[in-house]
Amino acid sequence: MIFSSALIETAVNEFARLPGIGKKTALRLVLHLLKQDSSQVQQFSDAMARMREQIKFCSHCHNVSDDEICSICASHTRNDDLVCVVESIRDVMAIENTQQYNGRYHVLGGIISPIDGVGPEQLNIHTLVERVREKGITEVIMALSPTIEGDTTIYYLSKKLKDLPVKITTIARGIAFGGELEYADEMTLARSIFNRLPLENYVQQK
Amino acid sequence: MIFSSALIETAVNEFARLPGIGKKTALRLVLHLLKQDSSQVQQFSDAMARMREQIKFCSHCHNVSDDEICSICASHTRNDDLVCVVESIRDVMAIENTQQYNGRYHVLGGIISPIDGVGPEQLNIHTLVERVREKGITEVIMALSPTIEGDTTIYYLSKKLKDLPVKITTIARGIAFGGELEYADEMTLARSIFNRLPLENYVQQK
Repeated sequence: MIFSSALIETAVNEFARLPGIGKKTALRLVLHLLKQDSSQVQQFSDAMARMREQIKFCSHCHNVSDDEICSICASHTRNDDLVCVVESIRDVMAIENTQQYNGRYHVLGGIISPIDGVGPEQLNIHTLVERVREKGITEVIMALSPTIEGDTTIYYLSKKLKDLPVKITTIARGIAFGGELEYADEMTLARSIFNRLPLENYVQQK
Repeated sequence: MIFSSALIETAVNEFARLPGIGKKTALRLVLHLLKQDSSQVQQFSDAMARMREQIKFCSHCHNVSDDEICSICASHTRNDDLVCVVESIRDVMAIENTQQYNGRYHVLGGIISPIDGVGPEQLNIHTLVERVREKGITEVIMALSPTIEGDTTIYYLSKKLKDLPVKITTIARGIAFGGELEYADEMTLARSIFNRLPLENYVQQK
């Protein structure tokens, strides 16, 4: 691409470094910004810089936060007995969006994956064990991806927690609502039969 | 979407205001920025603000420029006799990318479109007429979209320029290279027969 302006070229290149944004899309976005008021572009630019500069990670659960302790950990209406272990803050948001979970979270910051060079020591595991030991948590829900890495991480965590008086559960695997049986993989289908529920449960969930 | 951080929410909302970027994509981009070094995000943020703040429009051709006069108008190796009239800076970039055109440009900043409230007085038409009159331009190439608005604009410009000693041309319409005849619309196909070329020309173009 040939640019007649270095300012535009720099802006396009910066956009194009974001995931899923190619040069053409980057150019479209830059030309859009060019048409906006200077104050609006300044606002856009400030929001990004300020976000990265001022964001904190909650000292309890490692979720992103504007303050030392995140709004979920700071809430007084949430259930202190339950901790849901997730890989990333994106998962916290996904679960929060369901508006069905009222416990606390613990963000691992990844999952154990030797192939990517991620071992247990890089994850927020030590603080989880400490929380369980000191805060009288009664149930830890493992909400990790159903992959080999996810299962490895669940296994590792369950060993770390096995001497503590805490119940360990995993989120249910099964056929998604609206999913069709014939398209489900065999593993999921087999597990969903194995973990079948009484009809009363099904009606409640609906 | 429920955010536990106002900083992230603001950043996501700013991204989501860009064309073609929804809330989910915006979140993905923000989480990506969050993983980058602070200096890299600052660089991204600066590039946008600086681009919008410092960009100039060339006083000759209205192309975007880092200086008072754009690099194309400032070049000494380009043909002063030819001016290519385009709707927007995006078209300048498209033609420059072909690396086949060596004349100058004139960016109208839009096309005449009564339905969108764009009349001739909002476009850079006055300066085009002035350039043609004063700079001894011998040919004006109309490189506008083949739409009703484009044709209206060509017609308007040709009337404005008709008393000046300048040749007015339009870019060729026809079947695209690699395009298949049976899928071409009738108008284009009819025009491409009407404006047929001697075989020598075709061989040259290839």
